[in-house]
Amino acid sequence: MTAFLFDIFSTDKTARRGRVTTAHGVFETPCFMATATAATIKGILPDAARAAGAELAICNTYHLMLRPTAERVAALGGLHKFMDWPGSIVTDSGGFQVMSLSKLRKISEKGVTFRAHHDGSAHELTPERSMQIQHLLDSDITMAFDECTPFPVPQDQAASSMRLSMRWAERCKKAFVKRDGTALFGINQGSVYVDLRLESAQALEALDLDGYGIGGLAVGEGQDAMFRTLEEVVPALKPEKPRYLMGVGRPDDIVGAVQRGVDMFDCVMPTRSGRTGQGFTSRGTLNIRNARHQEDPRPLDEKCPCPTCARASRAYLHHLFRCEEMLGPILLTTHNTHFYQNLMKELREAIKHGALGSYAAAFLAGYQTDPAER
Amino acid sequence: MTAFLFDIFSTDKTARRGRVTTAHGVFETPCFMATATAATIKGILPDAARAAGAELAICNTYHLMLRPTAERVAALGGLHKFMDWPGSIVTDSGGFQVMSLSKLRKISEKGVTFRAHHDGSAHELTPERSMQIQHLLDSDITMAFDECTPFPVPQDQAASSMRLSMRWAERCKKAFVKRDGTALFGINQGSVYVDLRLESAQALEALDLDGYGIGGLAVGEGQDAMFRTLEEVVPALKPEKPRYLMGVGRPDDIVGAVQRGVDMFDCVMPTRSGRTGQGFTSRGTLNIRNARHQEDPRPLDEKCPCPTCARASRAYLHHLFRCEEMLGPILLTTHNTHFYQNLMKELREAIKHGALGSYAAAFLAGYQTDPAER
Repeated sequence: MTAFLFDIFSTDKTARRGRVTTAHGVFETPCFMATATAATIKGILPDAARAAGAELAICNTYHLMLRPTAERVAALGGLHKFMDWPGSIVTDSGGFQVMSLSKLRKISEKGVTFRAHHDGSAHELTPERSMQIQHLLDSDITMAFDECTPFPVPQDQAASSMRLSMRWAERCKKAFVKRDGTALFGINQGSVYVDLRLESAQALEALDLDGYGIGGLAVGEGQDAMFRTLEEVVPALKPEKPRYLMGVGRPDDIVGAVQRGVDMFDCVMPTRSGRTGQGFTSRGTLNIRNARHQEDPRPLDEKCPCPTCARASRAYLHHLFRCEEMLGPILLTTHNTHFYQNLMKELREAIKHGALGSYAAAFLAGYQTDPAER
Repeated sequence: MTAFLFDIFSTDKTARRGRVTTAHGVFETPCFMATATAATIKGILPDAARAAGAELAICNTYHLMLRPTAERVAALGGLHKFMDWPGSIVTDSGGFQVMSLSKLRKISEKGVTFRAHHDGSAHELTPERSMQIQHLLDSDITMAFDECTPFPVPQDQAASSMRLSMRWAERCKKAFVKRDGTALFGINQGSVYVDLRLESAQALEALDLDGYGIGGLAVGEGQDAMFRTLEEVVPALKPEKPRYLMGVGRPDDIVGAVQRGVDMFDCVMPTRSGRTGQGFTSRGTLNIRNARHQEDPRPLDEKCPCPTCARASRAYLHHLFRCEEMLGPILLTTHNTHFYQNLMKELREAIKHGALGSYAAAFLAGYQTDPAER
């Protein structure tokens, strides 16, 4: 019998270095998840993502309820077996994707009715159905079903949206069927309004869930506003529970959020950038399609030990992207995945040694190198 | 100092089991090449193709002269380093692709002028330039520059096309700069006209090249005509030199051609099919997009030991193709590559044990299973 656990091993000011145990093993925090929206990490084999250091994957209720359906995944033995990911899996509740992808949405107290983005078929998502789907998928960490508040938003609208999400969180708690080693996370909302964020934190506190999502950030408010919001919200969350900043972000966002006490992150950036030609390096990002790389025998990042940097020159990657060859996205996604996972590993080490401040300063100084010198 | 060598270890009627040594190692024959047209095997990492058993890759003069250019590949250390393929490499001469892909072609005694398929830029390929490009690429096996005769074609046109290719082969021999462990193969032409094929074989004999391509087959003439042509041509080729049937083919084509004395094959089929959803199995091909696979927990082929079959159900592959996820082509290309390489391994074993006839009969019986039973 495995309990869902979060052990904190060391702290460095507000930052923490810990380990989460679920029904499917452990993952070290702060962590960055492998984005496996439709039960696949785009452009990289599960083994390769694990070799890069990913221990936790995130899949999506909205996408999977449509195709192949939660019932089919359950009949095939659950998501871990279906997608060859024996490790822990978070499932997003579908709230964000219903808002951003589907058509003809109608939101009511009960939930959301909508038409699917890919074929226009009609569906309904409610807090109860989202819990049921995530259960069928055999998720380790289930996210509460919430309304994703748009940005910018007037305060009264942000308030009513957040309060709807808090009522839905209560229904999620009632509908969630706890199994060994699984968890339900509530999601803090309230846009950039501090009093709403604190009201949301208090509402979640009352539900005593297993961890916290922090939602509705990195949606256009800017890094300063995001950091300020974290500085207000984090102290209002119980320190013994993991904090997951949803959909974030750029490497510099992550460094700053870890300094402000965040434990878990997910973002499409390393995989999506890998498909469009943007590579992450210790000197900042670069676009491999740029003509200046076409005869460059150097790897993407001379400091990087990943299989792509060990074998492919910038000239070769440039060639693959110019010719629209699949191997370009595969190799660049592999590198970007390593870059993010390596950043998390270094952040964990820095916290362990009480050196997060100096690590962060050195990382950011390198990461902001003049683009012409990358 | 490495010589280009072809050692024949065993024969079974007309079939042979051997080994070719080049500047970049050895490959066992009969063999199937990894198709790396633009210096990348579509949908599979070089390491994974090697793990499947591929020892020889084929790249293309036409594609690489356009992008990134042969001069750039040479400046970057040659094709082996550029594409991370330390093993042997064959380069096709560009003749076939000029005919099938480029625009505004003009063929003269001197060579071919044309405009590139991707940007309309003007280029010229001659036997001498093709040899120079393949040298710059650092090819182990250089193919003579030939005209690809269309099919069907009247005999007089087939004759003049073949004779032009033979004059070009003579110019290729003069222009080819032999380095240790490299080879120049001539290409037998003559469409389905036996007397032309024999005239071509005689012309190549006079040039005493290192091996034979057999070109202009699998272009619409049908398997019977192809096998009949092989039965006439092969006895006219010196047995101590390797025979390479270019662009072939389906598994049943390969089995029949090995029985008729062919040593080397290349075809886009396993990789191209891998991208379109066609999987090769011991019971024949199947289309994974078909709805009958959507709840099927079985692997593609229960007899297959490849990483895809060890981990992915048909239902999962179906889901990936339905959602147009990159991992679908990656997993199916991996399987198809294993299928082809495993077939070659079994053919080599069968020849070694003098059991090719019974192996071929059993393979074909299985491969022609009723599609509903696959």
